[in-house]
Amino acid sequence: MIRDSEMYVVPEKSHNLLITKAFIDRGYDETEAESWVRICADATRHGVHSHNAIKAIHLDKVFGSGGGGCVPGADTETRRGKFAAAQIWDANNKCGPSVAYQAVDKCIELADEFGVGTVSVNNAFHYLWGGGYVLEAARRGYIAYTCCTALLAEVVPFGGKYPTMGTNPHSWAFPTSDALGFPILVDWATSVISMGKLQQLKREGKPLPSGSAIDRKGQPTENYDDVSALLPFGVHKGYGLGLMNELIAGFIGGGLPTVRGKFGLGDGHNHSPCFFFQVIHPEALSENLGDSIENVRSNLKDILSHGNENCLLPGQVEYQAAKQCARAGGLLFTASEIEEFNQIADQCGNKDWDSKEFIRFEA
Amino acid sequence: MIRDSEMYVVPEKSHNLLITKAFIDRGYDETEAESWVRICADATRHGVHSHNAIKAIHLDKVFGSGGGGCVPGADTETRRGKFAAAQIWDANNKCGPSVAYQAVDKCIELADEFGVGTVSVNNAFHYLWGGGYVLEAARRGYIAYTCCTALLAEVVPFGGKYPTMGTNPHSWAFPTSDALGFPILVDWATSVISMGKLQQLKREGKPLPSGSAIDRKGQPTENYDDVSALLPFGVHKGYGLGLMNELIAGFIGGGLPTVRGKFGLGDGHNHSPCFFFQVIHPEALSENLGDSIENVRSNLKDILSHGNENCLLPGQVEYQAAKQCARAGGLLFTASEIEEFNQIADQCGNKDWDSKEFIRFEA
Repeated sequence: MIRDSEMYVVPEKSHNLLITKAFIDRGYDETEAESWVRICADATRHGVHSHNAIKAIHLDKVFGSGGGGCVPGADTETRRGKFAAAQIWDANNKCGPSVAYQAVDKCIELADEFGVGTVSVNNAFHYLWGGGYVLEAARRGYIAYTCCTALLAEVVPFGGKYPTMGTNPHSWAFPTSDALGFPILVDWATSVISMGKLQQLKREGKPLPSGSAIDRKGQPTENYDDVSALLPFGVHKGYGLGLMNELIAGFIGGGLPTVRGKFGLGDGHNHSPCFFFQVIHPEALSENLGDSIENVRSNLKDILSHGNENCLLPGQVEYQAAKQCARAGGLLFTASEIEEFNQIADQCGNKDWDSKEFIRFEA
Repeated sequence: MIRDSEMYVVPEKSHNLLITKAFIDRGYDETEAESWVRICADATRHGVHSHNAIKAIHLDKVFGSGGGGCVPGADTETRRGKFAAAQIWDANNKCGPSVAYQAVDKCIELADEFGVGTVSVNNAFHYLWGGGYVLEAARRGYIAYTCCTALLAEVVPFGGKYPTMGTNPHSWAFPTSDALGFPILVDWATSVISMGKLQQLKREGKPLPSGSAIDRKGQPTENYDDVSALLPFGVHKGYGLGLMNELIAGFIGGGLPTVRGKFGLGDGHNHSPCFFFQVIHPEALSENLGDSIENVRSNLKDILSHGNENCLLPGQVEYQAAKQCARAGGLLFTASEIEEFNQIADQCGNKDWDSKEFIRFEA
């Protein structure tokens, strides 16, 4: 999140019109463009600037409809799985957010029927921000989880020298709005920092966190120019968590990690990421949901008492960002982000976008 | 794991007879004692010395049948849940390993029918080593997960001062034996180190890892005598993972974290941990299991190539320990562990235990 620059308030309608136009201009149909807009707006609203519409359009240009990894208008196929509570999908490289929102809806439907439901997706594209999908389920009252394989191999296994794993994120959300006012969201990559964060630190001249990267020889480095790979967080523990995405993707049918995202190779490999989604109905865990909510409320209060009153809960920063946007009456972007949107508007010929209309945000 | 001392080979039969006798002596029935023995032997076989029979008996004395947290001979009740793939159990403080093995069996049965199955357990006791239950499922061909709330609040929330969360472990295992020779096991507590490990480091005069503990003022400390609480691993990421166990337990019905394990208080609170189990059938993720196994094999080979040949996979150390036990023809214990077993044998009147019979292990 960029907190140290001036922010501008962009009415959500203006943002959404521009991004819809940009994705339709890139070949997507209305429904697909709407799903891109929905996840971009949700990421921005929750303060996740690293995964806003600028990132989405960049991803689509380099890897997606512009790179062979995503096929606008493609249809997801449901494979003939043998189990009622678990669906197996082949996304046929369809627009990632469309597939992901559909998968969450399907998991909720399965959880309503069986208590728990999963959707495993092969030949997927990028879904931008996993947190958005699990938050959607948690807002509707469910416990949700998703993981995916990241497009590029940027992370070394613990003790290794060469990047052979993705930054492989995990996202969990819990229906704690009634207990707490907002859903708890545990959502992060399994590297200490992302490549995007590294580039941001370089631009800002700030040091790399120790233990976040290695050089070509496999030695830890804090010098940007020597970085050849990222390290998993929490040494062997984060490595295990990142490897789990590779294992789940492997069972689903995902291809070799080191050629993932290299769609132009024409080597016959599967270069696409995989998605995994799971939703659990809270009444699958206990008989009385009202008691459970009361119980969660008391337990969280206990955890944040006794001198821990200033601790944050995971998801609280995102919730506060969303409240800030609501107060501001729009999505918040920095001046340089607005400048990038101006270029996007020029490229897709959107005449309705007028950045001079946007007011400066006063916190 | 204690690798720097002399080890002795204890025939599994001798170990099992002694520990069965010890638990029957403590009031458990044959089946319950067998489940204690089974998890103790499995932990020892996999090199998890921190969770062997000595720990199990200590736990039972302090918190279990000796502390009011476990009731030998109790019956687990299945509650009237509303979902076919998710069961809700009240363990009524029955022997933890008995409940845990039964929960794994039930999850496998549900996964066979629905693709995925969960068992949520309220009023549980300690199950000793979560890794053992998921490994059991993975050996039988399933993807398995368990988490529980730890008995005591020893960990601070990220940024906090006072311990209000358990060391709350997570355990995942994957059916990779056909692809790899052994099941991958991701299994650890969400603190940097456990309280047991801290005591071991103190005994051995070794330094605490930096960032593993804080003093009463909430400041980081590496001095044992100043430690008032443990820190989560991976800063906010490990905190989120530890909090997840508290949330799942909260939904299941578990009580306040700071009074958990304090069975003698008589304050009307639920002092027991909760368990959560989940099993996924590998064919819930893809149509062709043979292809999936081949795929997982290629992907893991890719991850551990390119200069990463010396990296270990999670679960590999445990697998190597089990192979070592198989070669040795018994379970491996240190001389001081054997001494503790001698005392256990005296206490429960087991005359068949004769430590002079055990040969020294030559690696």
